[in-house]
Amino acid sequence: MFKVKGFAAQSATTPLAPFNFERRDPGPHDVQIDILYCGVCHSDLHQARDDWSNSLYPMVPGHEIVGRIVRVGAHVTKFKAGDLAAVGCMVDSCRVCEPCDAGLEQYCAEGCTLTYNGYARDGTTLTFGGYSEQIVVGQRFVAKVPENLDVKAVAPLLCAGITTYSPLRHWKVGPGQKVGIVGLGGLGHMGVKFAKALGAHVVMVTTSPEKGKDALRLGADEVLVSRDAEAMKKARGSFDFLLNTVPVGHDINPYLGLLKLDGAMVLVGALTALEPAPLGVNLIGGRKTVAGSLIGGMAETQEMLDFCGKHNIVSDIEMIGIGEINEAYERMLKNDVRYRFVIDMASLKAA
Amino acid sequence: MFKVKGFAAQSATTPLAPFNFERRDPGPHDVQIDILYCGVCHSDLHQARDDWSNSLYPMVPGHEIVGRIVRVGAHVTKFKAGDLAAVGCMVDSCRVCEPCDAGLEQYCAEGCTLTYNGYARDGTTLTFGGYSEQIVVGQRFVAKVPENLDVKAVAPLLCAGITTYSPLRHWKVGPGQKVGIVGLGGLGHMGVKFAKALGAHVVMVTTSPEKGKDALRLGADEVLVSRDAEAMKKARGSFDFLLNTVPVGHDINPYLGLLKLDGAMVLVGALTALEPAPLGVNLIGGRKTVAGSLIGGMAETQEMLDFCGKHNIVSDIEMIGIGEINEAYERMLKNDVRYRFVIDMASLKAA
Repeated sequence: MFKVKGFAAQSATTPLAPFNFERRDPGPHDVQIDILYCGVCHSDLHQARDDWSNSLYPMVPGHEIVGRIVRVGAHVTKFKAGDLAAVGCMVDSCRVCEPCDAGLEQYCAEGCTLTYNGYARDGTTLTFGGYSEQIVVGQRFVAKVPENLDVKAVAPLLCAGITTYSPLRHWKVGPGQKVGIVGLGGLGHMGVKFAKALGAHVVMVTTSPEKGKDALRLGADEVLVSRDAEAMKKARGSFDFLLNTVPVGHDINPYLGLLKLDGAMVLVGALTALEPAPLGVNLIGGRKTVAGSLIGGMAETQEMLDFCGKHNIVSDIEMIGIGEINEAYERMLKNDVRYRFVIDMASLKAA
Repeated sequence: MFKVKGFAAQSATTPLAPFNFERRDPGPHDVQIDILYCGVCHSDLHQARDDWSNSLYPMVPGHEIVGRIVRVGAHVTKFKAGDLAAVGCMVDSCRVCEPCDAGLEQYCAEGCTLTYNGYARDGTTLTFGGYSEQIVVGQRFVAKVPENLDVKAVAPLLCAGITTYSPLRHWKVGPGQKVGIVGLGGLGHMGVKFAKALGAHVVMVTTSPEKGKDALRLGADEVLVSRDAEAMKKARGSFDFLLNTVPVGHDINPYLGLLKLDGAMVLVGALTALEPAPLGVNLIGGRKTVAGSLIGGMAETQEMLDFCGKHNIVSDIEMIGIGEINEAYERMLKNDVRYRFVIDMASLKAA
């Protein structure tokens, strides 16, 4: 075991503060990573404050981790010291079930091991996330980061990136398709970048005309303001695919109306209850689909990072020091971030 | 024009009664059919009573029609007098849009022409359905009926049959799959027969143990009683596909829990609002799909009838005379039919 400094919430009502803990020494298949940057996901805030009633304390949040490998176990083949590496939302899984076997560890039949607010496979050791100096993870759950990317802006790819990339790939989004990204936040802004790079005609679907303008800067071809009834009517039945990144309960039926025959809307953000609605009729009338998608498997995470390297895609970020994390959470609650806070972990030494 | 006798509702509150009207003489592409039998669909009852607030009167219901061709237009190539023929839920469409071009006339961009309670393409001529002696329909919207089938039990294939066959085919249900049919009525009993004939392992998912027994007789391999919490828990995550035929609003989330990773549930009956629910989480947790499907196109309707001919599949019916139709509607409201009423149109002569 070795000592690590981090930032933790000690309860749902205490702000994040310095916290010293221990991590295991790397086993034969583990790598030890010196964390350079860690993205701040909305779920960090919700879990730190126990909004989902499933929090375990002390909690060291953070699952958008990028850093340099400093030590590798004897059987590690994928990495060597000095490599740029990344860790996302999970650090382990059962590795033997059908989904794990198919490289879909996020859907592990026994449940994957979350990077924080979870238990290791022993069922008793709490996992601690990326708001810390170092982390130790089995190589299967570590991805390589292309060296050409701006490393400061890579961290959010590990959650916001893969969460949007995976459904766009699974539902085969590409040239000749009209694709809507619903909601412009951490996930939505990555959705715009990926859908564009995949060759689709990209429409930002947002309640805010101002956000719409920013979406054009990010690469969207068009903006559809969802509060504009006339525009929504005109756009009826014109979309092949919608990526819905809205993180709160909402009525999905107006969006279903935008879909073509055989169109699909995939939910990646709607973690709370949706409004009741004549879902049946709206789906039946055009053989439409509503589906959900959860992050992505490790193979696809690597594919996503390689795709980003090739297309020079990173997140739009605002860098903060770890001492600003509680203030950053407050700003996230007001949607005051474009589009992801990233913590410079060098700041932890001073904290 | 020629005179036809039928049964019609004159308003939402009047029982069906004899009604004389006229039909067009067959045009060059039309066939004239002497109706032998007409199935009684739940939607007949709902539309006759204006339950969906879209009824046009006088209304001659009936869109599960089987009969013999008595006259064909000059350019009719598919049929000759004496052929056994069938008409389903639609009798025309725009014929030029993308869905029509793809043989998906039910999703016609301009709306298909319903067999009854609709307007012909002229926008003014009311359509009258199969509770009548004869009907005149363009050959594109008429299917051939295999002569080996028991013609008395063929009529319901034109709505209950194609509505269940189409999604089973579109979502590629077949051998090696565990498929659940949710709800055992006119649609559900056809779903069981088709899923079995397509080679799937078929599970009847029903609230009623007694219906479950009957499903085994119809070909189901297993029964899952949805009110049995223990059985539902045991079945979690085990289904590849669910065909949901429940015709009323309900909470779909318990069914979503039955699906495997990448599993899909297709709604064919839920025409009213569903219960609000944490749909997002339940879909996201296993990349699951909820979709809808509406009847089937004419090419697929023919494919379905040919499939029925090959596998000797017909509906389980109870034959009635047209004079019993109002009583039959009351019995349908009490679910007192196994599984479809069919009207012997010979009874119309005496009515």
